[in-house]
Formats: sequence, C-alpha cells, structure tokens
Amino acid sequence: MSFLKNSLGISHEIVEKIVKEGDIVVDATAGNGHDTLFLAKLVGDSGHVYSFDIQDAALEATYSRLCAHNLQHRVTLIKDGHQEMDKYVPRGVKAVMFNLGYLPGGDHSICTKPDTTIEAIKKSLELLITNGIVMIVIYYGGDSGFEEKDAVMSFLKNLDYKKYSVLMHDFINQINCPPIAVCIEKLR
Amino acid sequence: MSFLKNSLGISHEIVEKIVKEGDIVVDATAGNGHDTLFLAKLVGDSGHVYSFDIQDAALEATYSRLCAHNLQHRVTLIKDGHQEMDKYVPRGVKAVMFNLGYLPGGDHSICTKPDTTIEAIKKSLELLITNGIVMIVIYYGGDSGFEEKDAVMSFLKNLDYKKYSVLMHDFINQINCPPIAVCIEKLR
Repeated sequence: MSFLKNSLGISHEIVEKIVKEGDIVVDATAGNGHDTLFLAKLVGDSGHVYSFDIQDAALEATYSRLCAHNLQHRVTLIKDGHQEMDKYVPRGVKAVMFNLGYLPGGDHSICTKPDTTIEAIKKSLELLITNGIVMIVIYYGGDSGFEEKDAVMSFLKNLDYKKYSVLMHDFINQINCPPIAVCIEKLR
Repeated sequence: MSFLKNSLGISHEIVEKIVKEGDIVVDATAGNGHDTLFLAKLVGDSGHVYSFDIQDAALEATYSRLCAHNLQHRVTLIKDGHQEMDKYVPRGVKAVMFNLGYLPGGDHSICTKPDTTIEAIKKSLELLITNGIVMIVIYYGGDSGFEEKDAVMSFLKNLDYKKYSVLMHDFINQINCPPIAVCIEKLR
C-alpha cells in the first residue's frame, strides 16, 4: 500500500477537508455516480448536491447508487450540460467536482468537450463562495482527451492570480498519462 | 485565511502524515533550522534527526532553535555537504526534507547547486525504507535558482516509475515563481 494517493484519491482527500454538513455542492460530471455519493455523504441531511450528466445511463446509475445508500433525497439529478449549471444551482456553493473524460465503461465518443467544459468551470467559479473550490480530475491518454486537457490547462494557467489560486498535482515520472488533479480556490 | 496551503505548508502536511515517533529522518538543508525543529518534534525521544548544512551560521541558528525547545538531544547537526549524507546516516530513513535555494536572509552566492543537490537526492533515495519519502521544496526566481530547478526537475522526471512515485505540486497561475513542492515515494 503506497503512501501517495492517486489523482482521484487526492481529489477526495481535498474535498473531504473542505466540505462540511449543510454545504451546497455540485458534481458536474455524475458518470457512474461515485463522486455524487461521496458528496451526498459529506453534506448530510442539511446540505445538498446538484449532479449533472447528459446521459440517461449515467443518471440512472447514479440514482441506483444513491438509493442503495438511501441518500437520494440529498441529491438533485439534472439531465443537462454542466455548462448550464447556473440555471439550476443557487450561488453559495462550497465545492464543485469534475471528472473530465468519458463515462468509464461507456461510449468514448460521448465525452466532455473543451468548450463546454471551460464554460462549466467559469460558471462554477461564479457560483462558489469565497474560499470555495473547484476540484478537477483530468483523464487523458489512449484515444482521447489530449485536446481537452491542453485547453483546460491553458485556461487554468491564465486565471487571475489575485482572484484564484490554482494548484496542480502531477505525477511527473509516469509513462502512461496518469490523470492530473487540479484544485482551484476562489480567493475573493 | 485561504484553504490551500503554500508549498512549505504542503510539504509540512505531507511529512506530518508519514513521520511517526521513533523514525529516523534527515533535514538535508538545515538553513535557519525550522524544518529540523519541525522534524525533531515529530520523531519524539525514540527517533532521531540528522541535519546538514555547510554554513556555521545555519548550524548555530538551528542549534539555538532546538535548545529553545529543549530538543537538541534528538538531533545530530553535521557540518558537511548533504551529498555526503551516506557517511553519517544509517539506512532505514523514513523521510528526507530539502529546501533548495539559498539561506533566507543569507548570502545568495552560497546556495544549493544542481550537481551536489542531485547527488544528495540520489543518496537520500538509497537510505529510504520502502514507502519512505523525499520531500523537496524548490525556491527559485529573482537572481537565482532557475538552473537548479531545471536540473532537479529533469532528474525527477526520469526516475524509474517502477521504483518511485514522483508527485509535483505546482501553483500554475501565479506570476512570481512560487516555490514548487515535490514528493518522491520509494515504492520498493
């Protein structure tokens, strides 16, 4: 058992530190529902999770996972692009999670895309409270994801340092494009 | 008070998680003694810290700091280059800390140098136990440090991924060369 966690583990460790009972949070990419369930456990009955996906299969899997833990009442599932999140989510969000790439086990041609992803990150930053975070895990490699990774990283590097702190976690000696975990904190 | 810590804070957070009472650890760059004191507190009376510097002023400052906390008995101060650490430190080390750059408030012409730094990192990796770590904070910018940073990063990127995991923490949207924190874990 190694000491260092992988990018997904790092993202959970960071989110666990900041999200408390009663918080409003967003899972921008429901996928199989793992992060939605993780967030639903953290916010308690007094908090709430808004969870987005454009695929029925993803929302169904997420709903089943929540029901298995009897936590579906803590979550609003939304079938729409995450770039539309400001239509559904009130301001005052503590944390937004993104897993960029395709639905694991799903169709690789249906995946997050640079333009809508960046639009969704912008909307997320608007919705955050001060010292709230956007946590992004970027999966790339194989047949997809390079264009999105480059576009997102370029966008993040150019965020105003007076308003946002952007911390990248990168495993720099690996050979197979390990996912990158990036945490953006809103400073004011 | 922001949520994300700076590189020094990240390095302490990681080291605090892994170093326990009874551990053998190394401060490869004593400097003003802050990290040596930090480590001395963590290892308890049953552990030990080996602390290196080539400057008398650094070792004196470190000794004073330890005495102020009555912890000098937990530390061996060594006036020699950290690239010689294998002459003083037994194998079985849990963690080695490096702050690369010059002594804060000291002479900028006396600073860590790429060749000896990389030699010292290699020696550190040899001395580590499995799942032990080397934690490096790289200060650069202004009049110095770029050459060392590039050389060290290039060395770290080429470490065998089967033997070591190398996690870089980088604040990617800042303008003034914020320090980089890198954690190397020995996997076997």
